[in-house]
Amino acid sequence: MNGAQALIRTLVDHGVDTCFMNPGTSEMHFVAALDDVPDMHSVLALFEGVATGAADGYARMAGRPAATLLHLGPGLGNGLANLHNARRAFSPVVNIVGDHATTHRRYDAQLQSDIETVARNVSTYVHTSTATAALGADAQAALAAAVGPPGTVATLILPADISWSEGGVVVSGSAVVPGGTVTPPTGAAPDEAAVRAAASALRSGERTAIFIGHRACVGPDLEVAADIAAATGATFFAETFPARLERGSGRPPVERLAYLAEFASMQLEGVRHLVLIDAKSPVSFFAYPGKRSDLVPEGCTVHTVAGPADDASAALAALAAELEVPPGSATRQQAVVPDLPTGPLTAQAVCQTMGALLPEGAIVSDEGNTSGLFAPGSTAGSPPHDWLCLTGGAIGQGLPVAVGAAVAAPDRRVVALESDGSAMYTLQAWWTMARENLDVTTILLNNHSYAVLNMELDRVGADAGPRAKEMLDLARPSLEFVPMAQGMGLHAARAETAEQFADELAKALATPGPSVVEAMIPPLM
Amino acid sequence: MNGAQALIRTLVDHGVDTCFMNPGTSEMHFVAALDDVPDMHSVLALFEGVATGAADGYARMAGRPAATLLHLGPGLGNGLANLHNARRAFSPVVNIVGDHATTHRRYDAQLQSDIETVARNVSTYVHTSTATAALGADAQAALAAAVGPPGTVATLILPADISWSEGGVVVSGSAVVPGGTVTPPTGAAPDEAAVRAAASALRSGERTAIFIGHRACVGPDLEVAADIAAATGATFFAETFPARLERGSGRPPVERLAYLAEFASMQLEGVRHLVLIDAKSPVSFFAYPGKRSDLVPEGCTVHTVAGPADDASAALAALAAELEVPPGSATRQQAVVPDLPTGPLTAQAVCQTMGALLPEGAIVSDEGNTSGLFAPGSTAGSPPHDWLCLTGGAIGQGLPVAVGAAVAAPDRRVVALESDGSAMYTLQAWWTMARENLDVTTILLNNHSYAVLNMELDRVGADAGPRAKEMLDLARPSLEFVPMAQGMGLHAARAETAEQFADELAKALATPGPSVVEAMIPPLM
Repeated sequence: MNGAQALIRTLVDHGVDTCFMNPGTSEMHFVAALDDVPDMHSVLALFEGVATGAADGYARMAGRPAATLLHLGPGLGNGLANLHNARRAFSPVVNIVGDHATTHRRYDAQLQSDIETVARNVSTYVHTSTATAALGADAQAALAAAVGPPGTVATLILPADISWSEGGVVVSGSAVVPGGTVTPPTGAAPDEAAVRAAASALRSGERTAIFIGHRACVGPDLEVAADIAAATGATFFAETFPARLERGSGRPPVERLAYLAEFASMQLEGVRHLVLIDAKSPVSFFAYPGKRSDLVPEGCTVHTVAGPADDASAALAALAAELEVPPGSATRQQAVVPDLPTGPLTAQAVCQTMGALLPEGAIVSDEGNTSGLFAPGSTAGSPPHDWLCLTGGAIGQGLPVAVGAAVAAPDRRVVALESDGSAMYTLQAWWTMARENLDVTTILLNNHSYAVLNMELDRVGADAGPRAKEMLDLARPSLEFVPMAQGMGLHAARAETAEQFADELAKALATPGPSVVEAMIPPLM
Repeated sequence: MNGAQALIRTLVDHGVDTCFMNPGTSEMHFVAALDDVPDMHSVLALFEGVATGAADGYARMAGRPAATLLHLGPGLGNGLANLHNARRAFSPVVNIVGDHATTHRRYDAQLQSDIETVARNVSTYVHTSTATAALGADAQAALAAAVGPPGTVATLILPADISWSEGGVVVSGSAVVPGGTVTPPTGAAPDEAAVRAAASALRSGERTAIFIGHRACVGPDLEVAADIAAATGATFFAETFPARLERGSGRPPVERLAYLAEFASMQLEGVRHLVLIDAKSPVSFFAYPGKRSDLVPEGCTVHTVAGPADDASAALAALAAELEVPPGSATRQQAVVPDLPTGPLTAQAVCQTMGALLPEGAIVSDEGNTSGLFAPGSTAGSPPHDWLCLTGGAIGQGLPVAVGAAVAAPDRRVVALESDGSAMYTLQAWWTMARENLDVTTILLNNHSYAVLNMELDRVGADAGPRAKEMLDLARPSLEFVPMAQGMGLHAARAETAEQFADELAKALATPGPSVVEAMIPPLM
């Protein structure tokens, strides 16, 4: 058995059975080994940023890591932005980067570069394999690092000769459970003093907010956090861009902190205690001249009940117990969906239509940016669904994350709410959707501009003339997404009125496989 | 004057008057300053890899650096692969990466990451600006590093507050000549002993090869090198992927070393002395099991007459003087163009047609990969032209380099010889071509496969089954480049016969502005 075969078998034995890849020559033995280990599902992407974003989306929905396979330093570079987003999502990823054979390195051939230094930007674990016999163990170590908690990007650099040589050893893992999935450690036990201090704040009568992130945004932990907020009268916020938020009718509603620091400050105004549950203390996305970056109000005490490396469930349970919160205290979101709009198509009409038509169990990959601002509101009472956000702020995430989510959850409909500027970053994701026949409906918000930057120009106080505004303009020439999608094998249609959009979206959601509905809308600002 | 204004003015004063960019919020003051310094030509790209590849193509044709403007660590990641290619091309690039305000860093906001560590992968110079007043001097230092010799990527990291604060100081440079262009130092003087040793080898009667790279592939240096080879009877080779090679009728012909190590070894068989002129000693692109990476034959002595940091012109002049080589010794390429082919369209027919129609002064950006193998042969006797190669092996270079070359040489026709798999990496370049109305004709070789990898699978000795081959297949679904190009505002046509291809290519070359001719061809292997 060669190294590649042992590596892939070890991964599969540990429940990592999906690999998003764009291989090159140095990865050919890994690719050849796919025929020896048919349990590894390999998904081809036409650009590494699609592969890494898909691994992130997969991890968010499957709760376990996928592998990637990238080609040397430049391939890692191409995948870096979405690994950055994965890092900010605490998504576990086993990021495999092929390298030249160890014997070839000293020649500094054309594709040679320092892979480790790039990997460190996004990875808490970086290891270059040095022996074929150790590859199985290397894979297990990378996987252990990836699952955390917190989940991280673990980069395993795989020299070609380590991969192609005989002598691979499969490691069957202690981390495996009978179902074949990885069980990550639960994290550090709750800090009892922090729990008591938070409980005391929640009982104090002073204005207190519970601020949830990451794992507290899904499943029973979301319910317990909502119960605590309801029982104590605390304001209940979620982080601005959660990796995955369960929402919709029947679930406890939670308001996300606004992207714009001005609005976030209004939401937090007067809060005297901020209780963090697997969330980072809120800061503004960017700095603005003369404005504070820290969004915690002056005089507010921050209580960290659970951080990313802690057992968030146990911490929430301890806090609920300390406060004697009755389960089921939280209100539930009523099922209320908007009417279908009519007339001219606007960003608001798109979001309203989305709220009216979103199917139960949908997964929304949200990179709608300015035009998508109305979407959380208009879908609040839609059937239960998941919402995946742009965690790291690096655009080009939405379509790749949709690919990965659809691979992880093949029985659910994925809706990619995507804006023109961001879509152009990783448009190649559409081809993978077509190739894998994934049930992904892309709503492409085409306003012909980097609208968020037009807004930011004002916010940073830059005095912008026509040459500056030209750099934010996508209208010259106009981007036409329907032919681009068709060129990659997808069904696509353009909507110019609200009625057309509703028709096309309904059709797209009812049809198996991927499609694109391009919504022609004016910029919001 | 704020920092951004001082930075841009300093760059312009030093002859850096073109900036390829994809800015974000942290770069908004740089963007706003474009209105204050109208001499800076700013070109928007929809993806950073287009911006960095364009800076590379610009430097290869202009002989001086462009600037880039990228958005934080993820933007640099997106641009990394083409900066890698620029590094391998010794192209000078002033690579400006915006960062959060210095006061914002401690909050570890979503887009925060370690930019310097990523930059080191491609840059010999990395500096994070720390004071607004020093920005002009920082720009000058980055520029000095960039121009070399050898030319390099110099990365200047620009925190938002350093950029937006008042107190910028323009530095008018000692490196400026009246024409406004940068004059890089000429490099180290020739090593007289090395020159004498090479001359002795060339006189020895043993088989000797002159191997040229980089600066020796253009202008008078190419002529002198060819004269020396002709006068001494040496074999005359150029490196496999020169950054820029001047060729065509009336110029001294030079054979490039083959990409495939098997063929390169045949070319070098029996060579007892290898004289390097601004070229690296030849090594195989990848390692293959059981094969040598070093392509220098056993027993062959390598003579380095000029390395990348040396004065290659002076070294060549010294060698010619030592050997008393009469100027004009070299033969000149005859003007011979192939007939237009007829019948089914194949890779060979595409290249033959290209040879028949290539206009004088054309610049070919060659990322034709396997299907482009016949192009150097079929264009050898075409009117004088430049040939730009995939220097670093990171695919996705061809279209961006074509953008930059066209910006640098607006009176010349650029032909991007591009293959399907590589084109999909940075297809967004087409939009910039349309926006800037660049005279770039893309020949899109569509063979529906990563054909080079099908070949490499065999060469690395991997035993590939159907699942492996599936990872190299681009036919399911079929990529249709005509609608994708149209969606970005370009004229595009598909050719399925040799006659159609000749018609469409002739029309495209005769029409101002960009267009795409998609050639539907069977894979070579």
